[in-house]
Amino acid sequence: MAIRSNWRVIMNLNIELDRQAKKPLYLQLSEQITREILSGSLKEGARLPAERKLAGLLGVNRSTVINAYRELEAGGYIVSHVGRGTEVVGRAGEKTDGFSWNEVLSGQGESLINPYSTAMSELLRQRDLVAMDSGIADPELYPFRDLAQIFREVLSAEGKTVLQHNCPQGLTSLRESLAELISLRDCEASPENLIVLNGSQQGLDLIARLLLEPGDAVITEQPTFLGAIDIFRSYGAKLIGIPLDGEGMMVDRLERVLSRVRPKLIYTIPTFQNPSGVTMSIERRRHLIDLACRYRVPVLEDDAYGLLNYGSPTPPPLASMDKSGIVIYLCTLSKILCPGLRLGWMAVPPEFARIVSAAKQLTDLHTNNLLQRAIDLYLRKGLLQQHLEGVKQTYILKRDTMLKTFEEYAPGGVSWNRPEGGFYIWASLPGAMSSVNLLQEAVKKKVSFVAGPVFYPNGEGANMLRLNFTHAPAGAIKHGIKTLCVVIRELQERNSRAGTVSRREFIPIV
Amino acid sequence: MAIRSNWRVIMNLNIELDRQAKKPLYLQLSEQITREILSGSLKEGARLPAERKLAGLLGVNRSTVINAYRELEAGGYIVSHVGRGTEVVGRAGEKTDGFSWNEVLSGQGESLINPYSTAMSELLRQRDLVAMDSGIADPELYPFRDLAQIFREVLSAEGKTVLQHNCPQGLTSLRESLAELISLRDCEASPENLIVLNGSQQGLDLIARLLLEPGDAVITEQPTFLGAIDIFRSYGAKLIGIPLDGEGMMVDRLERVLSRVRPKLIYTIPTFQNPSGVTMSIERRRHLIDLACRYRVPVLEDDAYGLLNYGSPTPPPLASMDKSGIVIYLCTLSKILCPGLRLGWMAVPPEFARIVSAAKQLTDLHTNNLLQRAIDLYLRKGLLQQHLEGVKQTYILKRDTMLKTFEEYAPGGVSWNRPEGGFYIWASLPGAMSSVNLLQEAVKKKVSFVAGPVFYPNGEGANMLRLNFTHAPAGAIKHGIKTLCVVIRELQERNSRAGTVSRREFIPIV
Repeated sequence: MAIRSNWRVIMNLNIELDRQAKKPLYLQLSEQITREILSGSLKEGARLPAERKLAGLLGVNRSTVINAYRELEAGGYIVSHVGRGTEVVGRAGEKTDGFSWNEVLSGQGESLINPYSTAMSELLRQRDLVAMDSGIADPELYPFRDLAQIFREVLSAEGKTVLQHNCPQGLTSLRESLAELISLRDCEASPENLIVLNGSQQGLDLIARLLLEPGDAVITEQPTFLGAIDIFRSYGAKLIGIPLDGEGMMVDRLERVLSRVRPKLIYTIPTFQNPSGVTMSIERRRHLIDLACRYRVPVLEDDAYGLLNYGSPTPPPLASMDKSGIVIYLCTLSKILCPGLRLGWMAVPPEFARIVSAAKQLTDLHTNNLLQRAIDLYLRKGLLQQHLEGVKQTYILKRDTMLKTFEEYAPGGVSWNRPEGGFYIWASLPGAMSSVNLLQEAVKKKVSFVAGPVFYPNGEGANMLRLNFTHAPAGAIKHGIKTLCVVIRELQERNSRAGTVSRREFIPIV
Repeated sequence: MAIRSNWRVIMNLNIELDRQAKKPLYLQLSEQITREILSGSLKEGARLPAERKLAGLLGVNRSTVINAYRELEAGGYIVSHVGRGTEVVGRAGEKTDGFSWNEVLSGQGESLINPYSTAMSELLRQRDLVAMDSGIADPELYPFRDLAQIFREVLSAEGKTVLQHNCPQGLTSLRESLAELISLRDCEASPENLIVLNGSQQGLDLIARLLLEPGDAVITEQPTFLGAIDIFRSYGAKLIGIPLDGEGMMVDRLERVLSRVRPKLIYTIPTFQNPSGVTMSIERRRHLIDLACRYRVPVLEDDAYGLLNYGSPTPPPLASMDKSGIVIYLCTLSKILCPGLRLGWMAVPPEFARIVSAAKQLTDLHTNNLLQRAIDLYLRKGLLQQHLEGVKQTYILKRDTMLKTFEEYAPGGVSWNRPEGGFYIWASLPGAMSSVNLLQEAVKKKVSFVAGPVFYPNGEGANMLRLNFTHAPAGAIKHGIKTLCVVIRELQERNSRAGTVSRREFIPIV
């Protein structure tokens, strides 16, 4: 049937051969067919009529068609298969196949053929899950009305200037507001220190670009933020993970590593860490800075969650304790306001700010001017602090809902922590239960979370899971955790039966 | 005097030595001074009292102070100069000096210490110039009212969704609108081919990231876009410039280069080129694609100006003639609408789109969601095409003003072209006159342009200049070109006098 329909296509092409022309008939024929292939009229996979048949239809010798087909085959336009006839193989300009991009990629490009961060995402594409896999603020709390009003005000007040270019480092007025904002975290920064970013992910990229060469070592906590693992890996860095305990990165282990290895960067999320929720103690912060200074390794401090404290005051950021200008401070609106506008910032030592600005300019000139002016006005009106007060109350409730439900329903062997801020509870499964297996079962029951291994540069964390308590409504969280506990229990039972079976199997036959 | 005031500081520090403590007095003293240095109370450059004097004040042996100062010196906190006394050298955590960022930069980082693109910018910082150095659309034409109305509509209609995350590739609906838009340029693209960018500069960065390794060769036109030179250089690429004539890149020369070198990328602005205003002929476009396919070198086509044609229809972009999927098509709103919102897009072969999206995600997750929705609505209402019609009429007038003024006032030996679209007229100066020298003189008369050499990967173009006719008002353009012609004439006369002088000087004494 396919042959018939393509046959008709050939007929519709209305091939006209000019017997008086100097150009041989077989060339006229092959050129006309080439034209149809290049124009897309004859598509990839279309079958051409058998030589004898086409010769008959066109009233030419079979050798004319044979020669035309040979031309086409030599040009890579068609291919003959025994039993399948002659087939169009593509619309390539000169070559048989289209250009193969995978063959020309840089090291960075190759690292993106299967990026680490998409490893788990397929499983989580469903829309009707109780989404505890998220890293997103509660959308119900996005201050949409305030922001819409602010955008309207900026559009009225600023006029055309919002459509103009701005300086790569960011709007001066916004940098003043951001300096004010980070003073809430005891960080002294002036507008000269600050760079406005399209979200903190861009900060990770700029710093990696400016410091890393393939093969360089980068220290992270282990577990750590997936987006950081991806970016450092894409620059060819080797990641060295330092384990965490309840006081954050185990800095004594860091010291042992630094005595052997000379890393180019220490990346840390010391406050309400992603994914573990853990906060680094003040002593460890001091120790970390001392080590960084002693070994002269710059520190990138990701403070995405620092303003979201739910109890006692948060320890000061590393950046506020740094006297050597060795710490870069990175923050974002995504966790404290909303993620879709893409606004972040970095405070860097003044000497380095000029180079970071040049990298920002190289990358995308500057961040959207309208957005910068709107956020500046939002901050100047004190609306973010008001917003944070409300948000924190809700997140405390949701965290406590998650914790209480765990306390009530968790089977023995499950353990979890109680973060004093941020977005996540970090839990471990009993024995050798795999969080990836659990996720596969949980998703069937419409509950999601993130399985531990994606957060471990070395692929550990098989029995760990990250549970987000900010995104889903409190009722859904309660239901989600109950369901999860049921699934864990089922898996425990299944595993123990499987365990029995496998033990039986291995009883030697006597 | 300085010593006196710091002396008082030391007194204010209220040093307390405990003679009963186990800790030796010199250590107590050095630790207390260290604390004051680290806290910033004793600043860099502050002078400490002479040993004997401090010993007297504190009632301790001079050796106690000597030992304390030795400790401080060993710790890198102070330094003693003969004749200047003892000075605080910095507030470093452990080391003498602050952390030195320039010492830890990657190759990319080092390339940004003095980026190429800032070479000329210092000269052009003045605000009251007739700015013909710009690459910016006419701000008077920015459709502010329409855009403000669109943003208001989106904020009302879309509500909170504008604050949410979006997919890295870009809002599907916007990608549909962009596919429609580029069909005006005869490019067939589907939303799957398109990536939304923060301006086209981000497209250059993503492609460079995905394809280039240090030492790779990249082909460009010569002259070419400064932002492209900067980005390719920052990735360590060697740039090979192919000269232009009135029909665009001299593709026969490209062919000779390709027979010797295997570049990783061909970057071209075939239509209304920046800086030359030249448009590549259809024959050369065909030839370029053939060569790219034959040598399997991907092509990045920058079509920033393609929709701004002022006369006969524009030749189709390379991307519309490409059957092999070897051409990437890059475009931006900056030249056709306004630059400050930062929105661009790329059409890439579907196989490659997935990898480009992963790179976009890695870099900054996605482009501002509110902006994407607003531009989508703006395009769907057909407002861009309306806008373009008006803009083109104005730009034709301004171009013609620039051309006519040149015709009327240009001294002999100055030549210029007549671009059929875009933003720039490209002119050459008589003989060995340097455009950099001319610029220095022109700026004194409040007239600016861009001197040729910055556009040449190999530093040529000494007597070339780029003149923008879109940014300044027509009256200012007329005045600017007249002034420029006067300055050229003055320089000519000065040079010829200088020439006479120098000839005299070199007459041998007989």
